[in-house]
Amino acid sequence: MTAPAVPRVCSIARALEVVGEKWALLAVREVFLGNRRFDEMIRRTGAPRDTLTARLRTLVDAGILQRHRYSDHPQRFEYHLTTAGRDLYPVILTLLRWGDEHLAGMEGPPLVLEHTCGHRLIPEVTCQACGELVDPAETTRRSPTSS
Amino acid sequence: MTAPAVPRVCSIARALEVVGEKWALLAVREVFLGNRRFDEMIRRTGAPRDTLTARLRTLVDAGILQRHRYSDHPQRFEYHLTTAGRDLYPVILTLLRWGDEHLAGMEGPPLVLEHTCGHRLIPEVTCQACGELVDPAETTRRSPTSS
Repeated sequence: MTAPAVPRVCSIARALEVVGEKWALLAVREVFLGNRRFDEMIRRTGAPRDTLTARLRTLVDAGILQRHRYSDHPQRFEYHLTTAGRDLYPVILTLLRWGDEHLAGMEGPPLVLEHTCGHRLIPEVTCQACGELVDPAETTRRSPTSS
Repeated sequence: MTAPAVPRVCSIARALEVVGEKWALLAVREVFLGNRRFDEMIRRTGAPRDTLTARLRTLVDAGILQRHRYSDHPQRFEYHLTTAGRDLYPVILTLLRWGDEHLAGMEGPPLVLEHTCGHRLIPEVTCQACGELVDPAETTRRSPTSS
């Protein structure tokens, strides 16, 4: 007998329903890098056109990107980040750091960011209350939901 | 004429090749929450069994999870995070916060974490060098790669 599935109600799962697909997050990455137009996104991500079209629609419907027309004949659009879209920057940065640390290999990170403080940006996840680095061993769950 | 695709060499894209799929990250979430066994992961994620099997194999091959046998008859395994796996915690936390802020709705966040400092954990992404919150407007690229 297998226990029935009771998928966890979870903000991570909800977030992944919207942005949990490679091409969706790579489209968001391109907008952060200033490439707002479909053809440029295709060129810089390598996404299949149909897939990118579908992902952009999902991102617009989810309120992450806004579409602005920049040409009437032919109709052409570019994509801008909403507040919810800009709030994905921490997700992008933590993925970037993880890829830099675990997948960059001998050549090192292909893209290096610099912070306005003048140093190379190494993004860290810290606790808003105390400012300390967050370690999985130092967090517990407050939720009453079981297991 | 369409310009040829020259996908960006990028740690984000590389990271997403490994963890850029909903069920992969939800499996990692379950291991962080202490659910290391296949049936429990199925129950708490709602993943299709074949999909979870494939994702777990990818995560093991990528050095994110390690498989340990806990029963011989029948053979049963549980999954533990490697160092690279534990390093995904910031990714999980930023997704959690984004989902909490943008998708939790009236009921509020379904899972609340507490930091050892005694406060509710609100994870922030800060610059390792200066400790300030990182804003997209305050980062620039050092890489020589164009566009």
